[in-house]
Amino acid sequence: MKEALRYGRRSLLSDDVPIGCVVVKNNKIIGYGYNKKEDLKNPTAHAEIMAISMAARHLNSYHLEGCDIYVTLEPCLMCVGAILNARIKNLYFGARNKRFGAVVSHQKIEKLITNHRINYEYGILERECASLITGFFSDLRKRSK
Amino acid sequence: MKEALRYGRRSLLSDDVPIGCVVVKNNKIIGYGYNKKEDLKNPTAHAEIMAISMAARHLNSYHLEGCDIYVTLEPCLMCVGAILNARIKNLYFGARNKRFGAVVSHQKIEKLITNHRINYEYGILERECASLITGFFSDLRKRSK
Repeated sequence: MKEALRYGRRSLLSDDVPIGCVVVKNNKIIGYGYNKKEDLKNPTAHAEIMAISMAARHLNSYHLEGCDIYVTLEPCLMCVGAILNARIKNLYFGARNKRFGAVVSHQKIEKLITNHRINYEYGILERECASLITGFFSDLRKRSK
Repeated sequence: MKEALRYGRRSLLSDDVPIGCVVVKNNKIIGYGYNKKEDLKNPTAHAEIMAISMAARHLNSYHLEGCDIYVTLEPCLMCVGAILNARIKNLYFGARNKRFGAVVSHQKIEKLITNHRINYEYGILERECASLITGFFSDLRKRSK
């Protein structure tokens, strides 16, 4: 999760909401991503989509069997769908996302009808993950005054 | 939808399940995509993700306000999430997808908790859209015998 946080900070370079993600297999990072929605003007350029795409390229397979994903913020519905499509085993996230989170917050993952089950755990480095985002929005408010 | 079908046939070049998609604004196609999951070995390389990304680049905006999306097959959960994130207005699809469709088939879109509402309609050129896929799988079975 520390590495996911490190990548998340890179979003700040393009004034994107800082969210970072890594995909891990056998204790090795095989994919990473950070939110580039603003930078690329692309609604699909979330950290998870980037990290999954990179990991799939690395494995030369669209199924990321035996892989875990670490993300600083609770994934949205699109990213939960991508995680399920990729057949990722374990999902770990730091902070909850009350507006868009599709695991435990806005939408509960158990209520989704899916072809694959993922295990998930959250609250990992929660304070650091949450303050990365709150810090960003507090700076943004200061700058726009 | 005819254009979506035309792009869908391009998936066949890489032995991908043929699914095509276009994003339309003011009667003009501003984005297109076709399934490249196998070609790119990427579980996120669905026709809709490609078409949305291209349309967003075209508009230089991650919100595709006032845009409609046409796709030959009912979108999966990831793609429904992407369509919602992009704030697309109307979704039109041809054939239903009983295994993965997240609008009316496997998952009902009304059961999802979302921040944006999309109108949808399906069954457009349904026979052509369905036979594009069934033809592909029937060829695949013949070849693998």
